[in-house]
Amino acid sequence: MSKKTSILILNGPNLNMLGTREPEHYGTMTLAAIEDSCSALAAANGYACTCFQSNHEGELVSKIQEAIGTHQAIIFNAGAYTHTSVALRDALSNYDGVSVEVHLSNVYKREEFRHKSLLAPVVSGVIAGFGASSYSAALCAVDELLSKE
Amino acid sequence: MSKKTSILILNGPNLNMLGTREPEHYGTMTLAAIEDSCSALAAANGYACTCFQSNHEGELVSKIQEAIGTHQAIIFNAGAYTHTSVALRDALSNYDGVSVEVHLSNVYKREEFRHKSLLAPVVSGVIAGFGASSYSAALCAVDELLSKE
Amino acid sequence: MSKKTSILILNGPNLNMLGTREPEHYGTMTLAAIEDSCSALAAANGYACTCFQSNHEGELVSKIQEAIGTHQAIIFNAGAYTHTSVALRDALSNYDGVSVEVHLSNVYKREEFRHKSLLAPVVSGVIAGFGASSYSAALCAVDELLSKE
Amino acid sequence: MSKKTSILILNGPNLNMLGTREPEHYGTMTLAAIEDSCSALAAANGYACTCFQSNHEGELVSKIQEAIGTHQAIIFNAGAYTHTSVALRDALSNYDGVSVEVHLSNVYKREEFRHKSLLAPVVSGVIAGFGASSYSAALCAVDELLSKE
Amino acid sequence: MSKKTSILILNGPNLNMLGTREPEHYGTMTLAAIEDSCSALAAANGYACTCFQSNHEGELVSKIQEAIGTHQAIIFNAGAYTHTSVALRDALSNYDGVSVEVHLSNVYKREEFRHKSLLAPVVSGVIAGFGASSYSAALCAVDELLSKE
Amino acid sequence: MSKKTSILILNGPNLNMLGTREPEHYGTMTLAAIEDSCSALAAANGYACTCFQSNHEGELVSKIQEAIGTHQAIIFNAGAYTHTSVALRDALSNYDGVSVEVHLSNVYKREEFRHKSLLAPVVSGVIAGFGASSYSAALCAVDELLSKE
Amino acid sequence: MSKKTSILILNGPNLNMLGTREPEHYGTMTLAAIEDSCSALAAANGYACTCFQSNHEGELVSKIQEAIGTHQAIIFNAGAYTHTSVALRDALSNYDGVSVEVHLSNVYKREEFRHKSLLAPVVSGVIAGFGASSYSAALCAVDELLSKE
Amino acid sequence: MSKKTSILILNGPNLNMLGTREPEHYGTMTLAAIEDSCSALAAANGYACTCFQSNHEGELVSKIQEAIGTHQAIIFNAGAYTHTSVALRDALSNYDGVSVEVHLSNVYKREEFRHKSLLAPVVSGVIAGFGASSYSAALCAVDELLSKE
Amino acid sequence: MSKKTSILILNGPNLNMLGTREPEHYGTMTLAAIEDSCSALAAANGYACTCFQSNHEGELVSKIQEAIGTHQAIIFNAGAYTHTSVALRDALSNYDGVSVEVHLSNVYKREEFRHKSLLAPVVSGVIAGFGASSYSAALCAVDELLSKE
Amino acid sequence: MSKKTSILILNGPNLNMLGTREPEHYGTMTLAAIEDSCSALAAANGYACTCFQSNHEGELVSKIQEAIGTHQAIIFNAGAYTHTSVALRDALSNYDGVSVEVHLSNVYKREEFRHKSLLAPVVSGVIAGFGASSYSAALCAVDELLSKE
Amino acid sequence: MSKKTSILILNGPNLNMLGTREPEHYGTMTLAAIEDSCSALAAANGYACTCFQSNHEGELVSKIQEAIGTHQAIIFNAGAYTHTSVALRDALSNYDGVSVEVHLSNVYKREEFRHKSLLAPVVSGVIAGFGASSYSAALCAVDELLSKE
Amino acid sequence: MSKKTSILILNGPNLNMLGTREPEHYGTMTLAAIEDSCSALAAANGYACTCFQSNHEGELVSKIQEAIGTHQAIIFNAGAYTHTSVALRDALSNYDGVSVEVHLSNVYKREEFRHKSLLAPVVSGVIAGFGASSYSAALCAVDELLSKE
Repeated sequence: MSKKTSILILNGPNLNMLGTREPEHYGTMTLAAIEDSCSALAAANGYACTCFQSNHEGELVSKIQEAIGTHQAIIFNAGAYTHTSVALRDALSNYDGVSVEVHLSNVYKREEFRHKSLLAPVVSGVIAGFGASSYSAALCAVDELLSKE
Repeated sequence: MSKKTSILILNGPNLNMLGTREPEHYGTMTLAAIEDSCSALAAANGYACTCFQSNHEGELVSKIQEAIGTHQAIIFNAGAYTHTSVALRDALSNYDGVSVEVHLSNVYKREEFRHKSLLAPVVSGVIAGFGASSYSAALCAVDELLSKE
Repeated sequence: MSKKTSILILNGPNLNMLGTREPEHYGTMTLAAIEDSCSALAAANGYACTCFQSNHEGELVSKIQEAIGTHQAIIFNAGAYTHTSVALRDALSNYDGVSVEVHLSNVYKREEFRHKSLLAPVVSGVIAGFGASSYSAALCAVDELLSKE
Repeated sequence: MSKKTSILILNGPNLNMLGTREPEHYGTMTLAAIEDSCSALAAANGYACTCFQSNHEGELVSKIQEAIGTHQAIIFNAGAYTHTSVALRDALSNYDGVSVEVHLSNVYKREEFRHKSLLAPVVSGVIAGFGASSYSAALCAVDELLSKE
Repeated sequence: MSKKTSILILNGPNLNMLGTREPEHYGTMTLAAIEDSCSALAAANGYACTCFQSNHEGELVSKIQEAIGTHQAIIFNAGAYTHTSVALRDALSNYDGVSVEVHLSNVYKREEFRHKSLLAPVVSGVIAGFGASSYSAALCAVDELLSKE
Repeated sequence: MSKKTSILILNGPNLNMLGTREPEHYGTMTLAAIEDSCSALAAANGYACTCFQSNHEGELVSKIQEAIGTHQAIIFNAGAYTHTSVALRDALSNYDGVSVEVHLSNVYKREEFRHKSLLAPVVSGVIAGFGASSYSAALCAVDELLSKE
Repeated sequence: MSKKTSILILNGPNLNMLGTREPEHYGTMTLAAIEDSCSALAAANGYACTCFQSNHEGELVSKIQEAIGTHQAIIFNAGAYTHTSVALRDALSNYDGVSVEVHLSNVYKREEFRHKSLLAPVVSGVIAGFGASSYSAALCAVDELLSKE
Repeated sequence: MSKKTSILILNGPNLNMLGTREPEHYGTMTLAAIEDSCSALAAANGYACTCFQSNHEGELVSKIQEAIGTHQAIIFNAGAYTHTSVALRDALSNYDGVSVEVHLSNVYKREEFRHKSLLAPVVSGVIAGFGASSYSAALCAVDELLSKE
Repeated sequence: MSKKTSILILNGPNLNMLGTREPEHYGTMTLAAIEDSCSALAAANGYACTCFQSNHEGELVSKIQEAIGTHQAIIFNAGAYTHTSVALRDALSNYDGVSVEVHLSNVYKREEFRHKSLLAPVVSGVIAGFGASSYSAALCAVDELLSKE
Repeated sequence: MSKKTSILILNGPNLNMLGTREPEHYGTMTLAAIEDSCSALAAANGYACTCFQSNHEGELVSKIQEAIGTHQAIIFNAGAYTHTSVALRDALSNYDGVSVEVHLSNVYKREEFRHKSLLAPVVSGVIAGFGASSYSAALCAVDELLSKE
Repeated sequence: MSKKTSILILNGPNLNMLGTREPEHYGTMTLAAIEDSCSALAAANGYACTCFQSNHEGELVSKIQEAIGTHQAIIFNAGAYTHTSVALRDALSNYDGVSVEVHLSNVYKREEFRHKSLLAPVVSGVIAGFGASSYSAALCAVDELLSKE
Repeated sequence: MSKKTSILILNGPNLNMLGTREPEHYGTMTLAAIEDSCSALAAANGYACTCFQSNHEGELVSKIQEAIGTHQAIIFNAGAYTHTSVALRDALSNYDGVSVEVHLSNVYKREEFRHKSLLAPVVSGVIAGFGASSYSAALCAVDELLSKE
């Protein structure tokens, strides 16, 4: 596996509240704990890892724009913006690395409007429903895909 | 990680043709190669692994029924039946282990009718779009979930 | 009431799992128990009674085709195929006896896709929601209809 | 079977015209004949039986409200109101006994708007398509359900 | 033209308020004035004419039932019930004379839900948009149709 | 009633085939017979009457344009164009006289696509279902409306 | 605040059962208790207050018609008719005072068909979800609006 | 009533333009005037009151997150975000106090897309259509609900 | 025309009942008669011809998979599976020869759900409505297409 | 086969441009070449053959009307009008001979709106997707059908 | 800018009535005035300019066919046919020059059916809402596009 | 043309990436180049010109609010927010100058969700599909409209 390749862990609105909010959907682990776990796992596989969270659609758009040429992969839990943001779709569509849409909960068990992702058609792949393990599985997939390039 | 836990790798219609069929969607790897790769990865993590493929909806239903008490997890690529089979949904709904719906291709980039999965609401989680690596990521997720039990 | 008239009790996918599966929808009675109860009730009214279950759509289609000229009535719980099988609809449409669609659960209380039956427009009538008593009520209706012929 | 248990046979709009109206859908039996037949069958099984018909949605609502604590079961052919009345749905939803929605004709063979029942999700079960025998089958089902309580 | 033939002029909910209500849709003529005008025109052509208005769906259903064998034609402005009442549709469907659905306003210029009539498929014909003259035109049509019988 | 007021009787595609075509929908009267009958009835009430039929949407558009300032009313059976022509709607919308949409058959009893008229929201009123008498009733309505001006 | 202004508290089908029915939606307070509480609050602010409940759509239509010139405001919980009655919409549309649609439960948390109100577009405003306090809040709003006139 | 309980008055995009914008929908009162009026009314009832407006979806999300444990109630006019923001829905869903969705205009009288609120299913209740009095009525409802706790 | 080229005539569920079933849709000719006629016509044009029928979706999928490299063309009447089987669509999509979807009846004259074919977008062409002559016309088209290769 | 029977080959809008337009859909053969080929094939089977093309919907309607009693069969490629013309549907519905709807391209592979034919339910059968061979196959089918009469 | 390049200004149904028809949508300028203004502006930029209007869909189709190789650009206001004509779409799709769809009014402010253009997906671009200045802006755009070739 | 009139060129999310992103849709020109070109063209016609881009919906809302009384026209490419932002629609609806919605690409050739603009009904007009020339054409239209005031 190549060294020094960089991965961006990007989290959207309300994910800063993890651990306090609707544990039946999201579990009791905080975002910091997930980010630490991801960073450790990434490091163990030889990747650099940057974490960022924002409630602002525009900030997330800008962060994806900046990732071009900086990060070779994005693991993105867009939260509520998954279902409403064409702007994030356009930003991801322009991104040239590996991109993974992740969700903690199995969104297909929830409200109808959460079944439709505006981002899914422009990312490399989608992983949903495994709680914090969704991020681990995403790192696993990213690792395999980057290794093949 | 627990020893001797058993995982069922289940593949549906037309997946026996992998490697010959629409490589722009499914790649050039054969099903046997994927099954071998899964078995090796499972074994490396201490799991037993059984593989089965069928073009028959009824056989897949029966196989899921038999998995109760036999396999602790199912990784299932239902192929076309993902979008049409309530019978498989009912069988999975009755299954008591960890279940993962996988797809080789990013189904959200394809025809509209492939965006809707009848199985997704009754499995543990969904992984799509990473080619043969979808199975690896699924094994990664299954491993994490079984480890927590 | 005529003697030796024959009734086919036909059950579709996953109904072989009755008694073990989702008891809040289907109760705790096994399929064998239901079939025994039906046979006893049929016999008490002077009918012969044949029972058959399959997870395979094609086998159920063939069984209905064979019932022409053999069984004067079919009591059919098509399970999941109720909502997806045009092939079974076509087979029932060609059947010339009394036919009853039955369901253990009140399907109208469940997921939207279970509210639509492809079979209902081509059977004599529909009975749903009474648990194992749905079969008894179907036998009651069949008895009345056959008596009038 | 318990004695003196009371059943309400409730019929909605235009069912007072039975025997004169669209015999291809409803047969030639009058409502009085059906009510007599139901009463006899109920009596034979040890039930008291009350019959009521109205063209007025509000009267039917009130009758269901009054049935609480008075009748242990309602067999209800709501006719046209089946497809339009949320008020009757709310009344049935509040009712605490066994309730059966019945139809003379197989409503699934008729106009699209008759395929949707607003009442079905709040009753115990549904029986349709057996002509006057729908009421008999309903009594059979009610008898079984009340016997189990 | 035959003598003593009888026509029922039937008006539904809120039409008793004509002349006071939304004159941009319904004009300033009262219902009594319309009924008088219809009666005079009917009499001039040798018809008996009966007028009835009710806000109650059930009363209108009963009135149509009673018209069988009593009135040879019904001119019916069902008002709001045009768009919601299957019960009135069933009653009209059973009626054996000439029936005309009339509207004062051009309902196709108004809210979307007023474009759909549940009654139109079961009446002889429809006339809408001519204000009080809709009734006159209906009498003209009824006269022609009855003359041909 | 004013003298010399002029009415245009306009008929659209396939209405030239009346009397030969689908008599269960359109009767056996020819278009010429209907036009003669209309002309006679119009003359009896003091109106001039011009009749025109075309299978060409563009010719019908032009004829309506020319009617401005020439004919005080149009009675228009647009046939199939009723359901497809925005061009005719725009032409009628620009017309400043009385306009009546007529149909021989009760279009609401026929295929779903015939229930929607693109013209209805821009004409004075609609009359449908009375066979050739639809034209007579339209003349009756036009007469009343022109008399009030 | 003006003296002797009159407010009508109008309640529709099944609201007479309050306190006994589905307490998770409607609470345990009876309708009489709510009416008493409204009357006391109205009186404290100098208003006369009349209360009326009916299960009959037609009676509610008539009551709204009679309120013109009698009551300066209507607080109306139409219950199930909220979602099905065009007749009540037409009656409210003709009413010239302040009108408030109220609901005890938050209807937007319940079945899809309860999210759509036919009345909302023709009333002054809507208040839903506060239990019996919905009526208090409505009185508060009515008081402010009447004070500004 | 409890002392020192705190209420957050939250306003979304374009509400800073109140008094200058589309007075037929929103009236001529400025936001500052509404906030002053709310604060006075709240203070009169013993509540602390904080007011905040933003055009930024992300800032509103953050403000709701911060309200947990700080404000016992939120009165929220989300303006345009009512109809498009799943992020705000998720934030409100996580909020543990009383929440009221308010609108100045009767949104049900306006464009179709304003009839659907993404927030309504996760707030305590909804008040719409009373102009600035919507806020007063919301304070009334909040007061009653907090008093009962 | 080339010699020894092979054509597969494939028939789906219920087509084994031809000649006994709904003759108004399918005629009175048996499947054997159609297969014999096809074989004779194929032979006359120098083609080998294989015929196969099954009620099982999975068997039909497998048969199409086996046709790759074996048969240069498939004439396929999928019956009911035309409208429900994504598995057959995927199998046909992978097939590399000429493929023709045929129907005995004009499916566009029948129930709405028969108007939609899941197979049509992945076959060479479609022929429907000519009874047994649909197969002849398909052979004609196959002959022309194979001759051009 | 009967002699002197006459077949009309009718082509609609833009088909005069064949050979120059979108060859990926329509091939490089001109309309004249197709018409010559059809005429030769028809003559070889003993039929007279008339060819006509127009961009005008009205002219095509008239041509179909004139075919009654003149041509025993119509092979019609209506091009774009297939999807929009109720007028052509009505004309074909009145036609008493054999009628075949043909398309050069497989319309089911193209835009959604080309999947719906207004003509298909009123013709004898449909053939699509074989390029110029669609006309040959249509002649084959017409020959078989006329031979059976 | 190139000399002698030719532009076709094409106008569809009812645009010959400009200046007389619905001035709130279309202004008071006549079509001749617009054509003169376009010709002058085109000439000033060195283009030849041809103008044509027709109410006939077929004539407009033919005119576009003739423009191939004759006119380097088409500025087309298809009026009502914008929303209904697949034939014009097909003709434009075959056209090889620059094509601009123009509208005088802002069609997005009008009836829902005017929001959908069948032509937009096959033209170079769309300009709507600027009155006669829509044509000027189209000429501006055409000039820029032709200059770049 | 008036002097010193000011125009705001406003660009939304991802347009800062122009020249690097999806050149098949957006060309290779950077945003700075487009802004420079616009400014030069505006200056040549005597207008002041201000340019602003943001990825933040809230900032764009605020910028439009500030334009009231400052800029006489806005040329706005809202990018992805065109299809999702009611907040921008409300801000534009309150704006009192000339407003033009522009798009570089022909949005009607792209994904279905890009065909619907929430902004179009509240701007003066729309221009799409001409690449950077869309801005030039917009300036042309703005110049004509401002000149007429």
